Amino acid sequence: MGDRVSELIIWTYDWVPEGPRGFVRDLRLRWACEEAGLAYAVRTVPFDGRETNHLSRQPFGQIPFLNDGDVEIFESGACLLHLARKSETLMPRDPVGEAHTLEWTIAALNSIEMVSVPWWFLEITGAKHNGLTDWMKSRLGQIETVLGEREWLAAGRFTVADLLMADVLRVPKVRAFGDRPATEAYVTRLLDRPAFKKACADQITQFAAADKSTPAASS
Amino acid sequence: MGDRVSELIIWTYDWVPEGPRGFVRDLRLRWACEEAGLAYAVRTVPFDGRETNHLSRQPFGQIPFLNDGDVEIFESGACLLHLARKSETLMPRDPVGEAHTLEWTIAALNSIEMVSVPWWFLEITGAKHNGLTDWMKSRLGQIETVLGEREWLAAGRFTVADLLMADVLRVPKVRAFGDRPATEAYVTRLLDRPAFKKACADQITQFAAADKSTPAASS
Repeated sequence: MGDRVSELIIWTYDWVPEGPRGFVRDLRLRWACEEAGLAYAVRTVPFDGRETNHLSRQPFGQIPFLNDGDVEIFESGACLLHLARKSETLMPRDPVGEAHTLEWTIAALNSIEMVSVPWWFLEITGAKHNGLTDWMKSRLGQIETVLGEREWLAAGRFTVADLLMADVLRVPKVRAFGDRPATEAYVTRLLDRPAFKKACADQITQFAAADKSTPAASS
Repeated sequence: MGDRVSELIIWTYDWVPEGPRGFVRDLRLRWACEEAGLAYAVRTVPFDGRETNHLSRQPFGQIPFLNDGDVEIFESGACLLHLARKSETLMPRDPVGEAHTLEWTIAALNSIEMVSVPWWFLEITGAKHNGLTDWMKSRLGQIETVLGEREWLAAGRFTVADLLMADVLRVPKVRAFGDRPATEAYVTRLLDRPAFKKACADQITQFAAADKSTPAASS
């Protein structure tokens, strides 16, 4: 009570295998909070039984989701836009800057990730013919053109759209796709930000610490 | 000048083949404006040469994009969220209702369409083995569970999240995927709204009228 403010709580799994550590999507929210200087705590739901154990809070059985006082919100993209409303660091307040931040945030989700995630899924499941490769080439080529012309996607400065686009583009198989120097420089520049480094290290540390304490880790 | 207000302008192609008519994504914006009672005009860029003819306005060569005074914004999902800020019909103003509308809007783009569009793309390009079918089954099953429990996705009433989710789910091959009665009832209910019917009829009429007048139609 008193001057207590509602705390941001980022929800993730209690453990994941080593492979995805550093790439689980709660990292997007940690990174955004670190950039914006927003205080947050991290809490967990069990990785074991994740298909059904928190469907009332996330209807696809995934993480992250976010608590902000009375508000609970899922979908990492939606959580980022929610956080962006709390901090001008993440999204400018002028109408044009806000619109461009919004359009590039959605572009990362629905024009790039809509191709790159299914393409990557087909790659790792060993599809002999990945029918999405030409589409992937086209979309990543279009992004390369954009990033060859400017340093940031929106408003001439870092925004949450860059945070999300860099997270989409840094997936190892996606990052290794073709020769795209402007994109590579962009991703490198974003991953060099202290806020990303802290968020990433924190996630890896948390999951590594859980190796000794969760049922999933020993099953 | 004087009391002139900035007009919303929805940009689409000047013509498309008969197949996609009624499904081109400017329809999402028309539908939203019709629901909200927002005045708008529709203008066009050439379908011929679309890969390069408007890249400065839409970096993937696609439509729609939207003008709202000084603001120009692309990505149909971003345009919908922009319009939702102008009308409580599309998105409630209380923080919880707004967050839930936002999360389900993003879920339509990044949890459903991220699977359904690549799945559909592989289907129509005749992939012998569509490696996304199990994922599609899982996601549409999760949506069926949600829609079996409630009439609207967010805030207990129609929002822009329903508009977008219904547009994602009404794609014929997606709509015909499996037996999902709650989803079918939901889609039917949404498509029965006068605002959808007007938006859809207007789009079909516009493209049909262009059969006689655009170079693309006769090429």
